[in-house]
Amino acid sequence: MTETKRIRAAIAGYGNLGRSAEKLIRAQDDMDLVGIFSRRSSLDTDAPVFPADSAAQHADDIDVVLLCLGSATDIPEQATGWAELFTTVDTYDNHADIPGHRARMDAAARANGHTAMVGTGWDPGLFSVNRTMAEALFPSAQQNTFWGLGASQGHSDAVRRVPGVQRAVQYTIPSDDALQAARRGDGADITAHTAHRREVVAVAEESEQERIREQIVTMPNYFEPYETTVEFVSVEEFEKNHQGLPHGGRVITTGDLGGSLSTVEFSLELERNPDFTAAAQVAYARAAARMNRSGQVGAFTVLEVAPYLLSPIPLDELIARDV
Amino acid sequence: MTETKRIRAAIAGYGNLGRSAEKLIRAQDDMDLVGIFSRRSSLDTDAPVFPADSAAQHADDIDVVLLCLGSATDIPEQATGWAELFTTVDTYDNHADIPGHRARMDAAARANGHTAMVGTGWDPGLFSVNRTMAEALFPSAQQNTFWGLGASQGHSDAVRRVPGVQRAVQYTIPSDDALQAARRGDGADITAHTAHRREVVAVAEESEQERIREQIVTMPNYFEPYETTVEFVSVEEFEKNHQGLPHGGRVITTGDLGGSLSTVEFSLELERNPDFTAAAQVAYARAAARMNRSGQVGAFTVLEVAPYLLSPIPLDELIARDV
Repeated sequence: MTETKRIRAAIAGYGNLGRSAEKLIRAQDDMDLVGIFSRRSSLDTDAPVFPADSAAQHADDIDVVLLCLGSATDIPEQATGWAELFTTVDTYDNHADIPGHRARMDAAARANGHTAMVGTGWDPGLFSVNRTMAEALFPSAQQNTFWGLGASQGHSDAVRRVPGVQRAVQYTIPSDDALQAARRGDGADITAHTAHRREVVAVAEESEQERIREQIVTMPNYFEPYETTVEFVSVEEFEKNHQGLPHGGRVITTGDLGGSLSTVEFSLELERNPDFTAAAQVAYARAAARMNRSGQVGAFTVLEVAPYLLSPIPLDELIARDV
Repeated sequence: MTETKRIRAAIAGYGNLGRSAEKLIRAQDDMDLVGIFSRRSSLDTDAPVFPADSAAQHADDIDVVLLCLGSATDIPEQATGWAELFTTVDTYDNHADIPGHRARMDAAARANGHTAMVGTGWDPGLFSVNRTMAEALFPSAQQNTFWGLGASQGHSDAVRRVPGVQRAVQYTIPSDDALQAARRGDGADITAHTAHRREVVAVAEESEQERIREQIVTMPNYFEPYETTVEFVSVEEFEKNHQGLPHGGRVITTGDLGGSLSTVEFSLELERNPDFTAAAQVAYARAAARMNRSGQVGAFTVLEVAPYLLSPIPLDELIARDV
């Protein structure tokens, strides 16, 4: 493995995630941004932009492509095509389809001598690593994953469809009671409904607020099963304080080690979700490029990646400093 | 790699760590406890006990030996001898000597076709993994490690040497101000002295308490540089509430991802420190045995171990469940 060889990276897709990946690749000392593949002819960037259908022409110039594509349709439709041409890293987040996706990417990558890193980011991704490692410590582990405080796209959209709502965002927040129960090993009965509460911040005419609040908190599936609060604010306050993309979450694992209780907790607090997802993707892109150079072809999940491969720092230095 | 082959484990050394390892190996579905190597002829256990100097006779019956030996002298003097005979996993915690220890164990293990997993436990160990992975996410990370709440052996001993102290324990506790500073990315100026405060719980005659308190808080190096509180309790309360071996700690990593702040935190709260250290050692023993079977010989730190190798659950099942 050549620790010092620079990594030539490219990006496919230029939404929020692609733009975050662009700035983070530029910030790495060991990576160069070769360009951005897009179906659009003009992007707001000074990086080289290549038509997505010209990808094959760049195969010799790129070590790894970051697939910054949507999980709903783009990844299922396009990812194997990329894996035939390049070593790739994706943030596919359809948990139930990760085994199928890994199998498809493995076939496409392996047949072409490439490496495909699947399901990076933070959940799946760093949370997956933590779930596996923490559970492995206990003969019988109790494990709970919480999300938030986080702005939820789907629930915010649902609120915005209520007549009279001018602006709205929905925050998912872990329940304090559920967090405390999980930490003391009593998390077995926590459900998605009791683990989280929902906080809606909306802009609406004062005369409509009571009707809107009622319509939100009784909305089936979205809000009715949850503890939900609705706060109305001015347009000015909304624009000042509720335009961000914060997110976070935590994995809490407990277990009895033969008469003693231990609690392992891994938590994230993120001002801007796509930036952090891209940060994890960039680190796993480094691992993918290094694994490909050392002959490890096929698809890999984050569970199969040794930690030092994520770091630009040489292994000997990491051992001297971090271990 | 044969996922289903059972792992034949043995223990060398039978102090607190060895006893915790014994109960945890017995609790694993995929491991058998072959026996315990000890220099003492009789141990309080129903497991087979072998004289330490008979180790070579058991080389064919054991897949991995957990070295439950002290870091001060036993590991430096004896570990390479074990690595010549067996695949091993240790909890050597002399951070500054980990590179040298790894090099010595690598030579001993490699020459004999064995695998030596060095510096497992939680710090070094799980904290090392978290430091490397979290730092790798940021172009420029700020990282702080805190210890506690934890009972400190060395500081408790120092208090017990003060004349008139009948019983004493010292707890190291992270400073709330330092924790908050680290979480918001202002941890650069935190030192070991400002990161922690010290809490002493002692038993002494009432007439001597003021003099003892003064002698403790002014003790150079141990207490003088820290915020230190001394609480006196009755013998009964001491025996009821202060006989345990609690410990814990956290690694907090923050960084700017191009205009947004992210905070990654990994924390442990442990009722009994040796149980958790042994839990990590047992999981890495599994990894060592599996890596040896797949031909990965020589010494490895925790940074070089793929997460799934710690788990008794087959990789396909982990991918379907945890990713």
